[in-house]
Amino acid sequence: MAEASLELVPPEIAHHPAVVRNARKRGKSPREVLLDISLHYAAMKKLRIREKRGRPDIVHVTLLELLSSPLNIEGRLTTFVHTVNDYVIEVDPSARIPRNYNRFVGLMEQLLNVGKVPPDSEEPLLRAIPMTFDNLLKRVGVESVILLSEEGEIMKPEELCRESVERGEPIVIGGFPHGDFDPLIKERASVIASIYKRPLDTWVVASRIASGCERLLKIM
Amino acid sequence: MAEASLELVPPEIAHHPAVVRNARKRGKSPREVLLDISLHYAAMKKLRIREKRGRPDIVHVTLLELLSSPLNIEGRLTTFVHTVNDYVIEVDPSARIPRNYNRFVGLMEQLLNVGKVPPDSEEPLLRAIPMTFDNLLKRVGVESVILLSEEGEIMKPEELCRESVERGEPIVIGGFPHGDFDPLIKERASVIASIYKRPLDTWVVASRIASGCERLLKIM
Repeated sequence: MAEASLELVPPEIAHHPAVVRNARKRGKSPREVLLDISLHYAAMKKLRIREKRGRPDIVHVTLLELLSSPLNIEGRLTTFVHTVNDYVIEVDPSARIPRNYNRFVGLMEQLLNVGKVPPDSEEPLLRAIPMTFDNLLKRVGVESVILLSEEGEIMKPEELCRESVERGEPIVIGGFPHGDFDPLIKERASVIASIYKRPLDTWVVASRIASGCERLLKIM
Repeated sequence: MAEASLELVPPEIAHHPAVVRNARKRGKSPREVLLDISLHYAAMKKLRIREKRGRPDIVHVTLLELLSSPLNIEGRLTTFVHTVNDYVIEVDPSARIPRNYNRFVGLMEQLLNVGKVPPDSEEPLLRAIPMTFDNLLKRVGVESVILLSEEGEIMKPEELCRESVERGEPIVIGGFPHGDFDPLIKERASVIASIYKRPLDTWVVASRIASGCERLLKIM
């Protein structure tokens, strides 16, 4: 997932009354809580690229889909979440994400504040590291990716998975609600593809890709 | 979805201190709030069939998957949610479910308290009616269904959809976290099928079935 809409409240709006009030209600400091448009709508008016921010629910539902997929259960999926403010979350395939949204939010806050979950583990289920998309590619050892974007040429999910396997390139989907990928990410695309003629929610794209890979790999 | 884990707090536990405290915090009466195991765990110990109850998140994520699916966008899906305490929620295919869980909870509370959403609409997006699973089948005009259950024989999602179209029977998935269907529901199954050798989360089953139907109908 690239440019996922998941981050702590940024310093520019940490003093906004709505942000302070919400954080206090939860006994936290404003900089320790997740940015969430359903709570911080008014405060977010001042933020740059705000159409891509404050939607941790997208990451939540998409991770629920991916980690519970037969593809992941069979050990054939590795999931990375690159966020809109350049963190990378490494997800252990065996991680069980909280089903309840409010517990997910608490877990992500711990993750982004401490850097890993559980906080004192040598082999954490989740790890968060400041890292650009480009550096994530270096770390994974690839130079280019298959990018899913509304503007791409229509391909079937199964075909996309075959391309991914044959080229050894990861499939990248946007983790933000509106707008387009950053040009620096688009530059890394060897293929820009789309699976449907209209925009789809991130979790639907994720499940269709997983489903396509499951058919390709004869898992389902 | 059958026996979905979505209901208001039942009278037996409405006086439990944890339930009263949580409701008060939200300015509501205990009987007006959704039963949620992440809030009411201690109070739920006394409930019958409690392993099937208090998980509105399952309905939320599954509806997000189904209503955003190309199958639904193309007008080829009708969704009904039968709940564990025998309500039926009729979902207008054009309904946009809140992405945020807490807003979804607020909407479901309004729905179950008032019977429809928006409350004063002649053509509501969601309607909730006290109705058994059997009466839902009568209302839909079918006598039997294709039931997805861990114990069923393995079939491919696309095959299941073909059966559904050919027999004119709806596909039914369980909307509860653990346990088996009520025997009265199993009696209505003309086919009991499974799409994977291990249990899957409801939203994964829903997305794989939708994906299978999309391929069958050449939507994707």
